[in-house]
Parts: sequence; C-alpha cells; structure tokens
Amino acid sequence: MKEITLIPFEGYKYIEGGVCAAKGFKASGTYCGIKKSDIPDGNESPIKMKNDIGMVVSDTLANAAAVYTQNKVKGAPITVTKQNLNATGGKARAIIVNSKNANTCNADGEQKAKKMCELTANALGIKAEEVIVASTGVIGQILPIEPIEKAVPVLVKGLDYNGNEQAATAIMTTDTVKKEIAVEFEIGGKVCHLGGMGKGSGMIHPNMATTLNFYTTDCNISSALLQSALDEIVKVTYNCLSVDGDQSTNDMVCVLANGEAENDEIKENSAEFEVFKKALYIAMMNITKMLAKDGEGATKLLEVKVSGADSLETAITVAKSVVGSNLLKCAVFGADANWGRVLCAVGYADAEFDINKVDVKMSSKAGSIHVCENGAGIEFSEETAKTVLLEDEITIDISIGSGEFSAAAWGCDLTYDYVKINGDYRS
Amino acid sequence: MKEITLIPFEGYKYIEGGVCAAKGFKASGTYCGIKKSDIPDGNESPIKMKNDIGMVVSDTLANAAAVYTQNKVKGAPITVTKQNLNATGGKARAIIVNSKNANTCNADGEQKAKKMCELTANALGIKAEEVIVASTGVIGQILPIEPIEKAVPVLVKGLDYNGNEQAATAIMTTDTVKKEIAVEFEIGGKVCHLGGMGKGSGMIHPNMATTLNFYTTDCNISSALLQSALDEIVKVTYNCLSVDGDQSTNDMVCVLANGEAENDEIKENSAEFEVFKKALYIAMMNITKMLAKDGEGATKLLEVKVSGADSLETAITVAKSVVGSNLLKCAVFGADANWGRVLCAVGYADAEFDINKVDVKMSSKAGSIHVCENGAGIEFSEETAKTVLLEDEITIDISIGSGEFSAAAWGCDLTYDYVKINGDYRS
Repeated sequence: MKEITLIPFEGYKYIEGGVCAAKGFKASGTYCGIKKSDIPDGNESPIKMKNDIGMVVSDTLANAAAVYTQNKVKGAPITVTKQNLNATGGKARAIIVNSKNANTCNADGEQKAKKMCELTANALGIKAEEVIVASTGVIGQILPIEPIEKAVPVLVKGLDYNGNEQAATAIMTTDTVKKEIAVEFEIGGKVCHLGGMGKGSGMIHPNMATTLNFYTTDCNISSALLQSALDEIVKVTYNCLSVDGDQSTNDMVCVLANGEAENDEIKENSAEFEVFKKALYIAMMNITKMLAKDGEGATKLLEVKVSGADSLETAITVAKSVVGSNLLKCAVFGADANWGRVLCAVGYADAEFDINKVDVKMSSKAGSIHVCENGAGIEFSEETAKTVLLEDEITIDISIGSGEFSAAAWGCDLTYDYVKINGDYRS
Repeated sequence: MKEITLIPFEGYKYIEGGVCAAKGFKASGTYCGIKKSDIPDGNESPIKMKNDIGMVVSDTLANAAAVYTQNKVKGAPITVTKQNLNATGGKARAIIVNSKNANTCNADGEQKAKKMCELTANALGIKAEEVIVASTGVIGQILPIEPIEKAVPVLVKGLDYNGNEQAATAIMTTDTVKKEIAVEFEIGGKVCHLGGMGKGSGMIHPNMATTLNFYTTDCNISSALLQSALDEIVKVTYNCLSVDGDQSTNDMVCVLANGEAENDEIKENSAEFEVFKKALYIAMMNITKMLAKDGEGATKLLEVKVSGADSLETAITVAKSVVGSNLLKCAVFGADANWGRVLCAVGYADAEFDINKVDVKMSSKAGSIHVCENGAGIEFSEETAKTVLLEDEITIDISIGSGEFSAAAWGCDLTYDYVKINGDYRS
C-alpha cells in the first residue's frame, strides 16, 4: 500500500485532477526515448515505454514562484529556470520536464536546457523565458536533444485539460506510484483550485535522489506573495522530508498561479492569504507524505510530530532529528517499539529544551502506546506495540515542553531493499 | 577481515599491551552476570560467558582528562565521572566499566554508579572520587548491583600488568573484535608509552550505539594539558567517525597519565607536546578506524580524506558529509564507483568552497581511480574500479581547492546486516 491516507481539513475538499485541477491548465506526457538503453536492439516499442517527458501549460501567462536545491552541485535546468523567472519577473506559461537524464555535470547542460525552452516556446508560440525547465535522471551523461525535438510537437498536440496523469507519469523515475493531489476551496466567494504533482525518492537509475514538484492554481495572487507562501510552506513540508538525508542536485518545487478563479488579488497579511497558504500546505504536506511513503525500499510511512516547543525552529529540528535516525528507521521496519532510539535522537537534536520533560507516544490506525514520560521509559504492552507498529503508517508524537510551537517531519523505514537498490543500482 | 591495516609513523612504534602498555598500569576483566538472560535456566556457566566487567588501575595517582557524549540524554556513569574528576581536580587511580547495561534513564542510576566507585575504591584502598565509572548496554533497565559487588574483589585480585585483553573484552558489546592499540615513542630522551582500548558500534543489545574508550600513558603531563590534547585530537578522530549518524547517551573517551616514564613535565606549545599529541592521534585514529570497520553489519572500512580546504573546519565538514551519506555507503557496499554520490554529498556539505575545483579519487590496496576533476566526471575503467572497490579498506580522496587544511573521516558501508541487526534486535 503506497497510497497515503488523506486527512480531512475543514473548508477544503480533495478533488481529482492534479496539475489540471485548476482552471486553465492543460498537461500532456509521452515517451520519446531519452535513455538509449530503454530501446533494446533498436526494436523500440513505445507502447510499452513509460512516459519520459511531460508538459504543463497555462492558457494565460501565470505568476510563478520556485524554490531550488541548496546543493552546490546544481543541474543545468535549475540554472536556466532561475534565469528565466528572473528575466520575466516571475511569470511563466509552460513547464517542460523530462526524466531518465538529469542534464547535470555536463559541459553543454545549459545550452541543452535552453534548447528545451526554445523548442517548447516555439511550439506554443510563447517566449522561451516563459518556460520552466526541469530534468531528473542520471547525472554526468549528455542529454540527447533529438528525442526531445521530436517529442515537443507531440506534447503540444496532446495537451489536455485532463492530461494531468500523462504528465505525472512522465516525471516518475523509480517511483512506484504516481503522486498527485488537488484541493478545492473558496476565496472571497470564488471557488479556487490548487493541485500538483511530484516525483520522489526512487533513486535506482539517477545518480541521486531528486524530488521535482509542480503546482498550479487558478487563484489570483502576485508572484511576490506566491513566493512568500511557497517559502513558508516548503519549510514545514518538503524541508521536513527525509528519506536518507541525501539532497539532490536537481530538486525543484514550483507553483504557477493564473488567476482564472477571478478572486480579488490576494493581499499580504489578509485572511485570504491564510486560506491560500493552507491550501498550499495541504497539497504539499500530502505530496511530501507520498514521497516519504514511496521512499526507496520503504514499507512504512513514518510521521514524527513534535509539540510543546518554544519555537518553530526547535520543533522542526527535533522532528527532523528523529525522522532521520537510521537506528529508529530500522526499528520501525522491524515493528520494534524501541523508544530509546526516539529519545536518543531527540537528545542529539541541535536545539534547546529540557530532556526531562520529553513525552513519547507511538500510534497508528491500530491504536496508540505511551512509551516515555518525563524523559524516562514507562511500562507498555509489547503485544499492543507490535500491533500498532505493524501498520504501514506510523506516527510518533513527541511533546518536549509547554511551548506553543509544533511541527511534523516525514520519512520512512530503512529496509533491506534500500540497501539492495542503492548497492547495486548500476548493474 | 575486521582488523585494520596499521599505517607507520616515523618516530613511533606500534607495540602490544593496550591499556597496559604504559608503565604502572594493571588491568583485569571477568564475567559476573549483569544481564540475567545470559544465564539460561540458572545453569550458569561462567567459562562460556564473555567478560562483562573490567578494571584498569594505575600504580600511582594519575592525571586524567575526559570527553563525554553531547547527547542531552546522559548516562548516570557520565554524570558521576564528571563529578569525580571535578572533585579531584582531574586526578584518578582507577577505571571500573561494565557492559550489558548502560545504567541510563534509571531513577537510581547515579546511586548505582556511585556505588560502583565505592566498591572499587574500598577494594583498592583509594578514594571513591579517584574512580572513573562507565557503563554500556541496554538503557532503561535497572542495573543489578549484586553481581558487581561480587565481581570487584575478583577484578582487584586479577589485576595484572598484562591484563589488557581481559579488560578489552569486558567492554565489548556486539563488537566482533576487541580493539586495542599502543605506541612507543620518546620524549626528552625518555621512552614513553601510550595505549588504549575501545568498544564501538555494535548496537544489537544496547538500545543505542555507545563508544567507550580508555587510554593510559606513562608520560608526565598535567591534567590541563592532557585535556587540551584530548580535546584537539578527539576533534579529528572520534568526532570524524560516523557509523550511522546516531550519537549515544554513554559515549566517553578518557586518558590517564601517571608520569612513570619520568620525562620532564610536558610544557604547553613545546615540541614535546606535539610529540605527545601525535602519539595520542595515532592511537585514537587507529581505534577510530577499528570502530568504523567493525560498524554494525559493515563489510568495509571507508576513509574519506579531504585536502585543499581553507580551514580545518571546512575539511572536517566535507569529509563527514561524504562519509555519512547513506547513498554512498550503499554504493561502497556494492563496490560501485558512483562518484556522483560523492559529489552530491560534497555539494550539500555546509561549508564554503568552489564546487568546480573538486577532484575525486578512489583507492585501495588494489589500486586507484581518478573519477572526477574540476567538479565533473571523467572517464575511468569500470573494471579497474570494481577491482579497487572490492577491497575491504576504501579511501576516497577529495581535493576541494588550494587551501592548506586537510582532514579525514571514517565510516563503513551500509549493508543488509545493518538493517537486519537494527530492525530485529530485541527478538
């Protein structure tokens, strides 16, 4: 079961449609043969081949915001997308994205990424700077441009208001499930939509993990405010995701807002901005959970919630410390209620709090066990613990005091398959 | 092959003897049954049982220095040892240490740790404050004091100038080999010795990893200078060790110096101090490598050397970032020359340098391959790479510029057995 359980939020309705849920967004995807080894003996059979290139287009010029990997090694598409959004002052019409090759650490990387933008722009009759480009896959291998030249007209022809699945599958690498989300909500009496797609933590073929995430909304919001919302929400969603602590060269999260819901433009510090940010949070938090649950070799989603912190930073730091502990990840794999490992990871988190006030509960849909109080273990039923931890979505609630801040972090268990996949990926 | 290859250093000679290599140090170890489950059906057979308690004693009052875990959750023995060294102004005569129970997160922990000191002191006719106490094993379980009461007279009776192995095996938990080292060198024309023992990264039975390390030397050096040397050398040895990123509650490294080599007391900023620190470095670096190579489930020692940094901190940060990458650790397990993962981990290290000047080589006793130059991959023979990486001691050399600082970090591969051990340790 790689699908996650969706938690309801009042005032928001989960809907179908992914990146096409918002008005005025079309998408498409196709297979073009970016990776040569996908074509055995030249007997190419596109029917069997997974989409490896996708496109998302807004009917009108959209406001755009993006965040990128902090890795010093950056993929060429990251550089080109940054340049484009700078050139347009945060406007975009289209996204072009391929899997199977990261176009990173190549001498001609930027040239190829720009070419992808030009091809897309020419086919759509827009400016090259209005295109967001992204790639994921193996690094250090020259990106073949010919298949992309052939694919772009196919993608444009295939653009569809229901094309979200085609695009969502195009960005998958070793993901075992496609990752889409969309919510409907109201702003100023207008029905708004926000949806997105992500690809995650499968790292068999690429040299590194990459997470690419694209969101669309029909809300009317400026690029600056969109960027502010994105920065705030990424901090408590994507930046609280840990599959194995490694950070990719190509990570990107971007949002396009085309205003077609016709709400009055959202203002800073307004109630409407809060409604919008919550929609963004719901979407991104759910995709983050999907990425965690589909982590390489993962059998379980691990959610660590920290409350009672004196600051948001402390809550985040402690949650990430715990969710990133290899020892705990192995224990979760083994359905072992090893609270000592939780306490240990809480203890080495780089934050200030009183370890003697730490309280730990473990829960799942099968129940809950209280394992640690005031920093010391308490008796619990090992039998109940096993039942709780054999589920595939485990939550660890940690209270660290009486502060008002809380945060969550998401990860997965560490399994034999993780080692197998990553020990042997090129053979 | 869990034994490490010892690298020669001019002016220093590796010798036998561990904690008893220095003049005037005796040691002993015995089995006393600290863990009840070791005694099936009451049919105790001490002959088959591994030592679970050990003692090290200096003939004369020694100067002492220690460093402790930074984890907020601290074992009671850590607290008591700190108190004792404060009370004596950095003097100690004896070390008492048990495995099989960490005496941590117990309401009566401090009382029991003090009791261990008293028992030792009474039996030796010294002060309780002159005893260093340490424990490793399961946390959150009451330490039974009766077996220790019985064991202390046995340990005192067994004290021997060749007792180092008895003590070294007593501190082992899931270590698969005992870890001892000793070097001989000269200071001011006097022959000096420095030796030690460590226990590491096996974490099957205890709730967490613990590394305990005890060193002895016959050098004449003040407590303050000894502490200064220890702080400096721990930074580039133990603190550059990463088995899985988790940090224990009970970690401790301590050194006793009894002055029996009769050298003139070592002065600050002197050539003699440099000679002493190098001896400490050689000993601690080698035990660190032993701990890494015997990491849980490990099949290989991974050494990451970073050179050309603008500061020691940068060199350490980059080396630790690389050695701690789960993705790289899996690749090393699979003998896969996946340089992209090295570059990725270099790239997300929290330090300032030019990624375009990064150069990477991988080597072992089977040869060397140059895989990355100026931040980009270069062609290499996959066949040679495989030969190089199939060895059990792998070095990754990373040059990050033209600075004068360098550092190393040590770790191991990530294997199926790591997951197995930690997913299933309590069953």
